[in-house]
Amino acid sequence: MTNLAINSDRLWDSLMQLAKIGATPKGGVCRLALTDLDKEGRDLFIRWCEEAGCSISVDGIGNIFARRPGRNNDLPPIMTGSHLDSQPTGGRFDGAYGVMAGLEVIRTLNDMGYETEAPLEVVAWTNEEGSRFAPAMLGSGAFTKQLDPAWCLEREDPDGKTVIEELKRIGYAGDKPIGEHDCAAYFEAHIEQGPILEAEEKTIGVVSGAQGQRWYEVTVRGQEAHAGPTPMARRRDALVGAAKMVQAVNEIGLEHKPLACSTCGMMQVMPNSRNVIPGQVWFTVDFRHPNDEVLSQMDRALRLRFTEVAYAHNLELDIDEIWSFPATPFDAECVAAVRKGAEEGGFAHMDIVSGAGHDAVYMARVAPTGMIFVPCEDGISHNEIENATPEDLSAGCNVLLRAMVEMADRPRQAKAA
Amino acid sequence: MTNLAINSDRLWDSLMQLAKIGATPKGGVCRLALTDLDKEGRDLFIRWCEEAGCSISVDGIGNIFARRPGRNNDLPPIMTGSHLDSQPTGGRFDGAYGVMAGLEVIRTLNDMGYETEAPLEVVAWTNEEGSRFAPAMLGSGAFTKQLDPAWCLEREDPDGKTVIEELKRIGYAGDKPIGEHDCAAYFEAHIEQGPILEAEEKTIGVVSGAQGQRWYEVTVRGQEAHAGPTPMARRRDALVGAAKMVQAVNEIGLEHKPLACSTCGMMQVMPNSRNVIPGQVWFTVDFRHPNDEVLSQMDRALRLRFTEVAYAHNLELDIDEIWSFPATPFDAECVAAVRKGAEEGGFAHMDIVSGAGHDAVYMARVAPTGMIFVPCEDGISHNEIENATPEDLSAGCNVLLRAMVEMADRPRQAKAA
Repeated sequence: MTNLAINSDRLWDSLMQLAKIGATPKGGVCRLALTDLDKEGRDLFIRWCEEAGCSISVDGIGNIFARRPGRNNDLPPIMTGSHLDSQPTGGRFDGAYGVMAGLEVIRTLNDMGYETEAPLEVVAWTNEEGSRFAPAMLGSGAFTKQLDPAWCLEREDPDGKTVIEELKRIGYAGDKPIGEHDCAAYFEAHIEQGPILEAEEKTIGVVSGAQGQRWYEVTVRGQEAHAGPTPMARRRDALVGAAKMVQAVNEIGLEHKPLACSTCGMMQVMPNSRNVIPGQVWFTVDFRHPNDEVLSQMDRALRLRFTEVAYAHNLELDIDEIWSFPATPFDAECVAAVRKGAEEGGFAHMDIVSGAGHDAVYMARVAPTGMIFVPCEDGISHNEIENATPEDLSAGCNVLLRAMVEMADRPRQAKAA
Repeated sequence: MTNLAINSDRLWDSLMQLAKIGATPKGGVCRLALTDLDKEGRDLFIRWCEEAGCSISVDGIGNIFARRPGRNNDLPPIMTGSHLDSQPTGGRFDGAYGVMAGLEVIRTLNDMGYETEAPLEVVAWTNEEGSRFAPAMLGSGAFTKQLDPAWCLEREDPDGKTVIEELKRIGYAGDKPIGEHDCAAYFEAHIEQGPILEAEEKTIGVVSGAQGQRWYEVTVRGQEAHAGPTPMARRRDALVGAAKMVQAVNEIGLEHKPLACSTCGMMQVMPNSRNVIPGQVWFTVDFRHPNDEVLSQMDRALRLRFTEVAYAHNLELDIDEIWSFPATPFDAECVAAVRKGAEEGGFAHMDIVSGAGHDAVYMARVAPTGMIFVPCEDGISHNEIENATPEDLSAGCNVLLRAMVEMADRPRQAKAA
């Protein structure tokens, strides 16, 4: 096991080839879920997996499973993966790295002629980003039955197209039943999407679990009126109210630092005309914290302060908590396998909590799960300038390889004991 | 002259028929400039004018002139009018009233067999609202050479379609040269679009002039990043900065009340994804005040406070003043003719300053100009619930009739003296 090493150049080349699909002029990627470009990325992934000797299956929500047999194919597989879809102005590594790292693990084992006891699988989950279809992590949410699969298939993009329509259109509405799939353990390699590893000069983040999240949609209603002759004192300006709420969201995050995050990412102003006082504003709120009790405090603060602003400005207010996700600790054995992989590989590492949602967070509800983080430049992600070094990506993939082999061979060892 | 009276029912019926074109479910109108619906409104107006014996001409930017001959057709005409385009969620009276009131003046004079000394003209100006093509008042701006006509024709809507393309498409790129047209005086009847007449229980606003205006486009640039794992302290959130700027705009208006108005009407957030910290926000600012020196103070306050916010949040800032309009006093004789018309008609009236931009404000640069305001319900305009009473609309039209006849017959009286 000590001479296990992936092919760094091959991993990097695969990432760069994949990044051409939906490449943006600024060096990023725009490959929204279930678009023609997503199909192109999926087709390439499947071709590479088949060339590596894997068998492919696709489930009813388009999750792709590439399977490398083990010695004992009655054992449930050790799985790894991530997603191929991106943000509208996304980077080359978010999601793509986890899928390509899984493929590189299989290619490496093929090169070495190493047969694991349990089979291995690499999965590409559908619509992780949530930027085309809300909510995020739709494919893994349906797979793990944390979301109702039928409901997931009916989610609509901003143009009213549904997930199932778009799956059928690109040929990825597979025949495998959603979630009818055992899993002995799940690992996911991912760029950190934050600045901590870089600041601490660590190569590997041993992820101990994920922050809780709450997502809100807020509608503020005032009174449309002409911007010229309507005296300030008589206005019911929905944007002035919403602007104060955006500030309140920011303050609530700052009040619970360093671990809290709070963001208003989307805003739509109605009627959005420069000489009309806005009559309605819709915006989103994203709260995150590793402690559910703190999230509940943040929730209460949001409701109180938004209500105060609405009252002061004579505005109507709807707060809709559209999604919540409790804080999720990962499996102790999987976390230990990642830590051991980092130690054996000789990589500087630290424990870390995931601030972002990942497919692994849903998988943790149904199977022993662990994650491996590698640094990304300046902690920037969900941005076309997202960057990571070939060396760090290679290190994370080596840790993934060791952790998967460790877990895949464990049942055999158990039997031999 | 004392028995002059328009036909209130006919005026109301014409307004209601016109309001069917682009009618919205909430009782308003969406008839954006140079759309198919705008063409339909224009066609109806022309048909009614021809039925009233007028000759029609259309200039190169689609302004429509309906002319009723006088006894001396060598005299420049007394003109009135307004616009047929609406806001996206506009009302039934903004603009439409001024055009239909002009038509009703001609129909009334026809009924009475009254021939004025100077000819009369009713004009429908192109793209007054500025909501499809910026800036506002494009047709009257080109006509009065306050805007370069060639530049006006190249303005683009959000889809990149130009004014001239759309004029040709709907058949309203006329052959009359833009602005080659004398005008002895211009009147415009309009709903107040503010709450003052209603609050003061006056039927007629004798408009003494128009507020100055400044329009800005502001771009705030920060750093797109993932909303989860990016600690609050490291963020460069463009929306948090923009929200503080929206509040600063509101405060600047309040600091110069009661006459100042300040509004952010449009906002676009990039990339507008709920789990991405906004990297860029674009928004508009609209400042109005009857005193240009106060507008300059407001301008300085905006630049100072926006710069402070940008500095505090480590954001880049562009402030582009895209349009400014000095405060405009109206012609003393025209204002007096409106006041006399209100007195002779027995209508409660008061002097008032226009807070909104109107085609009359451009016309005031090239011809003696006056305006007549009538109340609108709750002062609300640029809104589908915009409303006015048939009685008030009739009163305003009667004042318009008297003022136009007064001015049209004045040259004859002058000659006879």
